[in-house]
Amino acid sequence: MINSQFSASSSGLSPTGSSTAVLLAAGLGTRMRSALPKAMQPLAGQPMLSHLIASAASVFDKVVVVIGPDMDDVAKLAAPHATVIQHDRLGTAHAALQAENLFGDGDVAVLYADNPLISAETMERLLATQRAGTGPDRADLALLAMRPADPGRYGRVITDADGTVREIVEWADATEAERAVGLCNAGVLCAEAGRFREWLHKVGNANAKGEYYLTDVVAVARSEGGIVHAVEAPESELRGINSRVELAEAEAIVQHRLRREAMLSGVTLTAPETVFFSFDTVLEPDVTVQPNVVFGPGVTVRSGAEIRAFSHLEGCEVGPRALVGPYARLRPGSTLGEASHVGNFVELKATTLGAGAKANHLTYLGDSSIGAGTNVGAGTITCNYDGVFKHRTTIGENAFIGSDSILVAPVTIGDGALIAAGSVITRDVETDSLAVARSTQVNKPGRAARFRAALRAKKEQG
Amino acid sequence: MINSQFSASSSGLSPTGSSTAVLLAAGLGTRMRSALPKAMQPLAGQPMLSHLIASAASVFDKVVVVIGPDMDDVAKLAAPHATVIQHDRLGTAHAALQAENLFGDGDVAVLYADNPLISAETMERLLATQRAGTGPDRADLALLAMRPADPGRYGRVITDADGTVREIVEWADATEAERAVGLCNAGVLCAEAGRFREWLHKVGNANAKGEYYLTDVVAVARSEGGIVHAVEAPESELRGINSRVELAEAEAIVQHRLRREAMLSGVTLTAPETVFFSFDTVLEPDVTVQPNVVFGPGVTVRSGAEIRAFSHLEGCEVGPRALVGPYARLRPGSTLGEASHVGNFVELKATTLGAGAKANHLTYLGDSSIGAGTNVGAGTITCNYDGVFKHRTTIGENAFIGSDSILVAPVTIGDGALIAAGSVITRDVETDSLAVARSTQVNKPGRAARFRAALRAKKEQG
Amino acid sequence: MINSQFSASSSGLSPTGSSTAVLLAAGLGTRMRSALPKAMQPLAGQPMLSHLIASAASVFDKVVVVIGPDMDDVAKLAAPHATVIQHDRLGTAHAALQAENLFGDGDVAVLYADNPLISAETMERLLATQRAGTGPDRADLALLAMRPADPGRYGRVITDADGTVREIVEWADATEAERAVGLCNAGVLCAEAGRFREWLHKVGNANAKGEYYLTDVVAVARSEGGIVHAVEAPESELRGINSRVELAEAEAIVQHRLRREAMLSGVTLTAPETVFFSFDTVLEPDVTVQPNVVFGPGVTVRSGAEIRAFSHLEGCEVGPRALVGPYARLRPGSTLGEASHVGNFVELKATTLGAGAKANHLTYLGDSSIGAGTNVGAGTITCNYDGVFKHRTTIGENAFIGSDSILVAPVTIGDGALIAAGSVITRDVETDSLAVARSTQVNKPGRAARFRAALRAKKEQG
Repeated sequence: MINSQFSASSSGLSPTGSSTAVLLAAGLGTRMRSALPKAMQPLAGQPMLSHLIASAASVFDKVVVVIGPDMDDVAKLAAPHATVIQHDRLGTAHAALQAENLFGDGDVAVLYADNPLISAETMERLLATQRAGTGPDRADLALLAMRPADPGRYGRVITDADGTVREIVEWADATEAERAVGLCNAGVLCAEAGRFREWLHKVGNANAKGEYYLTDVVAVARSEGGIVHAVEAPESELRGINSRVELAEAEAIVQHRLRREAMLSGVTLTAPETVFFSFDTVLEPDVTVQPNVVFGPGVTVRSGAEIRAFSHLEGCEVGPRALVGPYARLRPGSTLGEASHVGNFVELKATTLGAGAKANHLTYLGDSSIGAGTNVGAGTITCNYDGVFKHRTTIGENAFIGSDSILVAPVTIGDGALIAAGSVITRDVETDSLAVARSTQVNKPGRAARFRAALRAKKEQG
Repeated sequence: MINSQFSASSSGLSPTGSSTAVLLAAGLGTRMRSALPKAMQPLAGQPMLSHLIASAASVFDKVVVVIGPDMDDVAKLAAPHATVIQHDRLGTAHAALQAENLFGDGDVAVLYADNPLISAETMERLLATQRAGTGPDRADLALLAMRPADPGRYGRVITDADGTVREIVEWADATEAERAVGLCNAGVLCAEAGRFREWLHKVGNANAKGEYYLTDVVAVARSEGGIVHAVEAPESELRGINSRVELAEAEAIVQHRLRREAMLSGVTLTAPETVFFSFDTVLEPDVTVQPNVVFGPGVTVRSGAEIRAFSHLEGCEVGPRALVGPYARLRPGSTLGEASHVGNFVELKATTLGAGAKANHLTYLGDSSIGAGTNVGAGTITCNYDGVFKHRTTIGENAFIGSDSILVAPVTIGDGALIAAGSVITRDVETDSLAVARSTQVNKPGRAARFRAALRAKKEQG
Repeated sequence: MINSQFSASSSGLSPTGSSTAVLLAAGLGTRMRSALPKAMQPLAGQPMLSHLIASAASVFDKVVVVIGPDMDDVAKLAAPHATVIQHDRLGTAHAALQAENLFGDGDVAVLYADNPLISAETMERLLATQRAGTGPDRADLALLAMRPADPGRYGRVITDADGTVREIVEWADATEAERAVGLCNAGVLCAEAGRFREWLHKVGNANAKGEYYLTDVVAVARSEGGIVHAVEAPESELRGINSRVELAEAEAIVQHRLRREAMLSGVTLTAPETVFFSFDTVLEPDVTVQPNVVFGPGVTVRSGAEIRAFSHLEGCEVGPRALVGPYARLRPGSTLGEASHVGNFVELKATTLGAGAKANHLTYLGDSSIGAGTNVGAGTITCNYDGVFKHRTTIGENAFIGSDSILVAPVTIGDGALIAAGSVITRDVETDSLAVARSTQVNKPGRAARFRAALRAKKEQG
């Protein structure tokens, strides 16, 4: 009934150990009002599809992603997992069938890119339920269900006295009694590949939108005497993400999990609700994070380090017992040595700070390496860009860079060198040398008073 | 019974289409412990009275504000709407009567400045209920009611079997059974002008405080056979604001609404609960806002722009696809061109940034205009103030301002000009010219080592 | 049965007015996964033990803290209150007995360092209940109990028909009916010193862990005919803190209280949930605090001052009507005069700002004193550190420090002096003098165009 782009392969028995997850990611997400495909919308700094792939790949032997046409970015993201293209958007059953030649001969589960919070543990329970032995406990089809705080317009899962699923009733077709049922369909199905394929082909599209719905597989399976089991999981895992409001709610759930995991592993978060993590943030035990800190992707913070309020970190490593912030911005490619300090209104980009080195105030260090024990004074700026090329600044150990110095790269400052405050350094400075590049001070007695008097006179004139 | 400052006008029938909202704003708000009149306390950056006026003016033909003596600021805020002064604070019925000569001959609703979250939709339902035809559905008086999570000491709305209001029972006078009623009086009334006026004059002050209470109009109306209908609305709209704790709660409700509207219109808010809007913030679709951003009044952000964490914007326009922050402060009068960048620890005040222009690090640009494609280096500062006057800095297109440059205004830098890092620019620089104003570097071998040795010796001496 | 390090003293009657609080603080808090003893974990900027000591000392005549071995820091914190050491960790009853020689002859309550949120008012009710007269209202032992939202595995308080406590049943030993009881044991006990001591000695350790449990005192007291009363208090006061997740929850409770108290005293908090206080923060009425502000210990803000978003204050005093921030960092030892301004990306350390003085942009002032009415230009930096010593900068009144000036301390700038923008000031400047230390500007026509062309050629060559 549905034309698949591959020919149907023969069905087989389900050998435990062979399993395939088919992830439906062809949706455009029009309710997001965004140019980005829905699967690419970010959660904790990575596309929601990546979250789902990570969980699925930890449970299933194989992951196949069904994408829409013109979704090369999604295919690239899914790699090395296989992708198949759903050229026409004819419904979720149609989407699943695009992958039928990759079903293999084990068990197949169909999941959704806009349901990315489903845990590996829930996927395992789904698979285990579908595989549960013969006899009365046998499941020919397993589905995920939830009991939302507000069941709203979800399809209801109607069960028989023995607890197996009798049918899924869409909200529009449901009686009052059926609507009173709290158990709702999450849309995720799991069955043995051969039968799943057959059932999918039997799904029709005689409905208002003329689409082939995956949920109708339940009715097909039941009509052939299949036994269907529902596996319950928390609403927080199974809620779909269809709008930016729901995306923000999902982000909050992910952040809540990440904060909790960090604290349980020995990290102090003074105000956890104000700290924002990326999916891959690594904080070792006895790290302290003050309120209002944002971790972009790729950050590792070693034990005993303290990240103070209003700091922003991306793609960097903070060494043991280092102090960062408040108001420190660490950009990609930065590495902070043991017990180093980066203070307020300081930006580091692609810069290595040696052990015990300090850059405490109003400083920009870009494309630099700063030796151990060196002190970088307030207001120091590396000129790493000439309008076309980026150049490096190299500073040795135990040097002292006076305040408000300008280091015009490429430039090298030797160990133990001293730069006088306010100098513009354009040439290398040797080890233990003092470099000065500034003018002599001239004081002009009474001149300030006269200047002020002149300004006031001008003001009075109007 | 109450002396109004105007003589009572004759009553008339209520022609649909003529309606007046009387807003009571004479309260001092002593529980706020503030010098500001209560109506002037801000919500989302504008006085709470302005919120109420905006909603009321969208529903009623005329708005009249009752203020206290010495509240010129409130009168100014209310303009062009009429204000009348309540010279003696003798209660809410007395306050409403101060406006009786402005009741007109249509319908009148009395609302409160400290109930500013009531929606236009709720006001419309109130008015529609009061206007509902003749017969059993007829309402001579309509009031707003709510079912608060904690009914506490609110007056209870006691209804008859037919659903109409029998009476309002104050908490202190209520029986246990009456206190168990969840429907509470919000104090807002609506009636035909003539009758409303009559009823108001019949309200007495035989109570503990000797005040004339608006709520007593219900009993007066009922005693004359009037039919009273209650219109239910959410507690979040009807809760009064009497203390700073309640003000903060109202602010949270307003912010929640503004965040939700932004997301539904296509804006990405990674952590909506950390973004603070003003009543007039305009964000176009596909704008992204990272955590911890504050929007003061008068901000517009165009499509595709990204506002990064810890940014603070007021009175500015951010062009399409511009990047702002983290830690960017845009002050009033600033305009950012398409795809321009304002980076960390950068402050703009009354400054125009051309398309593609960049000011990425530790910079202050005040009273300036920066041409398209110009790069402003780290640590650049415009000296726009001489202690008395402000002066302008003008920079052309595709110029390159070297790091840590100082531009002493008034000064003009031509297109394609280049300022050497660390220069103090006091004179104009022509198109395509290089300007340098800095000293020559001198290196003194071994001098740093000797300086260090001297310092250490001094330290050892104590 | 338990060997105390002191010999048991004779028991006595309980004279009202003599009372001792024994605080158990020997716990290591292994579930915290921290090197810090549990009692030292911070809440609102001070160790949790200090919170408990402050409340206890306001209610009880004497406070005794039981610490573990090698906890000198805890003993120091507890001083001048007495500490006794529990050398072997044999349970809470054993811990309490270490203090028996300090029980005195009045009433004794035993509390826990990891229960620091218990209020003085609750402690008073506990003591009053224990002291309640003779007859049926008599209490030989009083304990604290709560009704948690999730009673979980707390021991249940089983009461008799007359409301007195029959027994405490541990969750593991409880029947279904007992588990259904909502009243839970908080572990805190209060009794007359002599009897308490006797009962503690009778507690056994015949349990799985072989420990002496304080809770078993209830059974001992009951077996001797003692009457036991339960005093209920909110869960938010009585919940224990055993993990970092619970520590963060307790921090949230403390912050909520501090924010509420501030607002009720007349402080405006636009977004209270984003403002973080220390235990000792003092904000006078009519102070305004914008979103995202962090108060470290030791801050006082005077009436009418405004602390703008993203500010960070520690150990400082902000004068009346001063403006701070956004993005201002005030470090310990800073004092801001009346109506002074500290603006964005400005750091003050050990610096006094006179009345009306301003430092509005990108500035670091350390170890300085700035006179009244002085304007410190954008990008000003004090060089207060030579690598070994710190030096002071002194600026007089009504001076004007031009932008991007560097003040190399020790240095003194006189009243009314003017520093030209971009100067490096190394010598004192007299009253009303103008000081300049910068180079002359040279413009090189066409040179920027040639430089650009050369860079592009190089880029094309690759």
